[in-house]
Amino acid sequence: MTNTAQQNDLANAIRSLSMDAVEKANSGHPGLPMGCADIATVLFTKVMKFDPADPHWPDRDRFILSAGHGSMLLYSALYLLGYEDMTIEQIRNFRQLGSRTAGHPEFGHATGIETTTGPLGQGLANSVGFAVAEAKLAAEFGPELVDHHTWVLAGDGCLMEGISQEAISLAGHLKLNKLTVIWDNNNITIDGKVSNADSTDQIARFQAVGWNTIEIDGHDQDAVEKALLESRSSDRPTLIAAKTTIGFGAPKKAGTEKVHGSPLGTEELAGAKAALGITYPAFEIPAAILDAWRAAGKRSQNLRGEWQARLDRSDRKDEFTRRMEGRLPADLAGAMAAYKQKLAADMPKVASRKASQMALEIINKHVPETLGGSADLTGSNLTNTPETVPFQADNRTGRYMMYGIREHEMAAAMNGVALHGGLIPYGGTFMVFTDYARPAIRLSALMEQRVIYVMTHDSIGLGEDGPTHQPVEHLSALRAIPNLLVLRPADAMETAECWELALQSEKSPSILALSRQNLPALREQYSAENKSARGAYTLVGPADADAVIFASGSEVSIAVEARKQLAEKGVSARVVSVPSMELFARQSDAYKAEVIGNARARVAVEAGIEMSWSRLLGDKGRFVGMHGFGASGPIEALYDHFGITPKAVVEAVIAQV
Amino acid sequence: MTNTAQQNDLANAIRSLSMDAVEKANSGHPGLPMGCADIATVLFTKVMKFDPADPHWPDRDRFILSAGHGSMLLYSALYLLGYEDMTIEQIRNFRQLGSRTAGHPEFGHATGIETTTGPLGQGLANSVGFAVAEAKLAAEFGPELVDHHTWVLAGDGCLMEGISQEAISLAGHLKLNKLTVIWDNNNITIDGKVSNADSTDQIARFQAVGWNTIEIDGHDQDAVEKALLESRSSDRPTLIAAKTTIGFGAPKKAGTEKVHGSPLGTEELAGAKAALGITYPAFEIPAAILDAWRAAGKRSQNLRGEWQARLDRSDRKDEFTRRMEGRLPADLAGAMAAYKQKLAADMPKVASRKASQMALEIINKHVPETLGGSADLTGSNLTNTPETVPFQADNRTGRYMMYGIREHEMAAAMNGVALHGGLIPYGGTFMVFTDYARPAIRLSALMEQRVIYVMTHDSIGLGEDGPTHQPVEHLSALRAIPNLLVLRPADAMETAECWELALQSEKSPSILALSRQNLPALREQYSAENKSARGAYTLVGPADADAVIFASGSEVSIAVEARKQLAEKGVSARVVSVPSMELFARQSDAYKAEVIGNARARVAVEAGIEMSWSRLLGDKGRFVGMHGFGASGPIEALYDHFGITPKAVVEAVIAQV
Repeated sequence: MTNTAQQNDLANAIRSLSMDAVEKANSGHPGLPMGCADIATVLFTKVMKFDPADPHWPDRDRFILSAGHGSMLLYSALYLLGYEDMTIEQIRNFRQLGSRTAGHPEFGHATGIETTTGPLGQGLANSVGFAVAEAKLAAEFGPELVDHHTWVLAGDGCLMEGISQEAISLAGHLKLNKLTVIWDNNNITIDGKVSNADSTDQIARFQAVGWNTIEIDGHDQDAVEKALLESRSSDRPTLIAAKTTIGFGAPKKAGTEKVHGSPLGTEELAGAKAALGITYPAFEIPAAILDAWRAAGKRSQNLRGEWQARLDRSDRKDEFTRRMEGRLPADLAGAMAAYKQKLAADMPKVASRKASQMALEIINKHVPETLGGSADLTGSNLTNTPETVPFQADNRTGRYMMYGIREHEMAAAMNGVALHGGLIPYGGTFMVFTDYARPAIRLSALMEQRVIYVMTHDSIGLGEDGPTHQPVEHLSALRAIPNLLVLRPADAMETAECWELALQSEKSPSILALSRQNLPALREQYSAENKSARGAYTLVGPADADAVIFASGSEVSIAVEARKQLAEKGVSARVVSVPSMELFARQSDAYKAEVIGNARARVAVEAGIEMSWSRLLGDKGRFVGMHGFGASGPIEALYDHFGITPKAVVEAVIAQV
Repeated sequence: MTNTAQQNDLANAIRSLSMDAVEKANSGHPGLPMGCADIATVLFTKVMKFDPADPHWPDRDRFILSAGHGSMLLYSALYLLGYEDMTIEQIRNFRQLGSRTAGHPEFGHATGIETTTGPLGQGLANSVGFAVAEAKLAAEFGPELVDHHTWVLAGDGCLMEGISQEAISLAGHLKLNKLTVIWDNNNITIDGKVSNADSTDQIARFQAVGWNTIEIDGHDQDAVEKALLESRSSDRPTLIAAKTTIGFGAPKKAGTEKVHGSPLGTEELAGAKAALGITYPAFEIPAAILDAWRAAGKRSQNLRGEWQARLDRSDRKDEFTRRMEGRLPADLAGAMAAYKQKLAADMPKVASRKASQMALEIINKHVPETLGGSADLTGSNLTNTPETVPFQADNRTGRYMMYGIREHEMAAAMNGVALHGGLIPYGGTFMVFTDYARPAIRLSALMEQRVIYVMTHDSIGLGEDGPTHQPVEHLSALRAIPNLLVLRPADAMETAECWELALQSEKSPSILALSRQNLPALREQYSAENKSARGAYTLVGPADADAVIFASGSEVSIAVEARKQLAEKGVSARVVSVPSMELFARQSDAYKAEVIGNARARVAVEAGIEMSWSRLLGDKGRFVGMHGFGASGPIEALYDHFGITPKAVVEAVIAQV
């Protein structure tokens, strides 16, 4: 350790604020901020490019605290650097309701928080998306407008989570050289030593997936600086293994799990400050130290000014600005209208996954910012179009991510792409594998990101692959996630509408639930209004019908057929298509009452479990759907076997009228 | 390639059956069985220890087809080896409804299928649990009774999934030397070449986590045999990287993705048979070849006889048999009754996670077969007791798995442990991280395995860690999974009852949803009957009350307090505790009607979303709970902020009466 007094002062400012905030909150994680203060000091005061005066500067470097429990490291740095919204009051209110300083960094709570972290591995996994977005936009708009780096601080927990392997193997394959991961190599997890549960040679592991690796003492600020700068000129992503002492400075608890996730306590805190030479009061950084930090925060002002000048001169300025602001191209609406008119005329009988591809052919032609992809199921998800040349190490202009068999990383990378801005990510896999991606899907929703999940093979309708591949509980389980639009279109027209909704939904991710099997066209007329936007609407049948039948996706045609059979029996029925329960929930009470109506019989049919339909069904309604896992067999046999048929719907109606 | 004609004949029998079955089903995956037929031939006819005449022989080697889409490889081998339930009719009925030969191998459909596979990576992840169970039982009962190997066949998809890293890093750390993974290294995935999406040096990757590695030509049967035998004497787990040609023998499609997941087609199939020298008709293996396979199936009969003799002589026979049959010790019930009597007397106010530990102190003392564990949250989950010495490479008698920060592998390993038999696995993490483990939890349920998930910090009640750590949708999303018991006890007594239910539930996994915060004792009297077994029951209040209030877990005490406040307003209320919706659903209609009742007001309160409560609430009921994501703050502030209070329950009742 050869740090200068100034270097130590800067780092100790982070340590001091972090210790004090955790102590005051009586809750939190002091160990990481104390252990990584030297790293953060170098990164923020010497290496990273950003400007607190314009925290959304598109060409800023991104910092991702993948080990999100160390949030005070980030909050301290943001305050010290001079981010306006990160006041000392916020630091004092760490972990209090309504503060910007939540227990884990929450995207949107304060500027400088680039992504929500806490669930381990997610930040690292996001970072791949950030780096992909940077590389693709740099190829598109040139390094004059896009040339920045993504920095990640990750802990042992991040590296033990499976998603980390998906992330680093994808990053290594894609040679994302503007990505640096600093591993807080402190040997400690919550349960004690890392060696209790893991014996991985992380350097060898990262090298096996094509990473540049550097090993340093994470408390030697000069060594940290050298490593960070070196990583910036690598032709591959870089892992910096930084040996640190968790809770650095704490006289009794440093280097142990005791300092990971609890306040130090009065005595240990005083001992730590004494050992570190911190003599100033809690939350009061001396002016000299604060000034030095604030000056460092202004380091990149000139760079930003030069960048702004280049943007102002650029003939791509309008397009770049539109893209970064997330506004859709003006000509999309017209193109979609023309496409929907054609659908009304042709009434094609196609699987909704195919209809999705047909919609994408319009979208990808008119929306250059879509970045497609699939977790190795392109031919099944039909997520490709003529435009979707793969994005690869040797082709940064590609518009399609070959994510490999990495559903979780696909979702997390899409979060990173969306958070970066300038691109709209969509990606496909089988609906059942939303389970593999669920933690990242939840974060799409929590962070309010426009991420579009193209989930095909959405029921037993996929047939022979059997119960492991057949979603049963997934539609309900996904509808359970707050702020997630689950869109399950019934035919090609609704699929086009749902794609429009997903693209327009700037603050919610969308799941498109699509069939493997062909579905008849049900919408017989072109409608300028996007009917799916209502979430549920009467597809056919009179308002005063004896029965109302709710259905979604592939089962709407079953409801329509049941209606015909009921008519033959003298029972009138109204069929309500429900492409999105979430959008329906947003409608006026009057509209909802109109759609639900007061028919004597009420039935819902969906090739999944009942749970999410119970509210609509109320006391008397009956459900036709799944009551357990699926089975392997041809589709027709399965629908019969599980009793999801027009006949079953008819019987459920008859039982009530 | 130096295979003899006999070697080729044996392997081609697998290829022939697999090609024919896929062709007849017009669906399925011929590529893997054709590519791995040489490997399977050697493994099943020369190396593995098993006896088709006693497929459940506890000391058999286990084979796990992690690349489950290649199911015809396994079905073909089981038929050829003479497993009685795998008839040629089953092979002919591949992928048909009701057959044993589902699209992917389904545990319980046929003997010799050790685990359900298909979702990639799961089999590999299960295998670690199998190997742990073997090592632990061997340490306990000696190699005379337990000494077998676990063999895994995994594809590129398995190795790309994140769970594979969790699995291999744990296996390497634990030095599970009786585990061999054969990697079907065929360079092909569904979307084309592996190199489209991955550049991992798998040998280096496995070495980085402490594995023995061997590289071979997977079509050279002598080389395969040598590698398999060599792996058996390793002091570490072994990866055999077997270079193969997917769809080996297919004249045009071999070595390409075209042979992965579709029937060959008439012409290509004929060409493949010609190239391979297969002259016999579809589904008709010549007697000489079948006889050779059947003879190989009998190889281990003597070993089994000797083993049976050792068991019969052993003074541990009764205990070993009890353990393998999964019967609980006779004295558990009495010990739990005594504990519950003490609870009724003491009425402790403790968090249900603490109550879980108190119950475990009884259970682990009386049930030697529990294998505890946590994904690095032992001190939070309170999954440890005095008995839970860690299971490590140097201590195979340990009873506690330090799973590391690997929730998904924890769940999958527990599946493997349960499937192996002889042990009852339980493991803990935070409830919100059920999302990370969800694919494996689903398989616990699908395979009907007694796996016990100890999920603590089950609501916003965890406080300051904030929305990333606060389950909101999870209770509903878990209740959505068929055959999964979600048990959310309200106090220490219900926690003891729920633990009893989880242990008794031989055909369903259980989720124990437990609070971080302290909960008052609500059950004032000892009940010999396990009241939680009914799923829902009247805790307090008259049958003819004005209102019924349903609640679970930490919110039951809120309901009880609301009842008091209502009484002061002259409104009588009945509180129904709902520890398990699944168990309630199994009760008689009469019991259900009695519990639900006909009160004028109906309210449910749970610190999660409404979805799973809608059925109980019906048309008029009101819900008090969460309507979006949580927030970071102290617990009291959060319950107030989100309106989950006695006051809110009172208002919801008053609005109806």
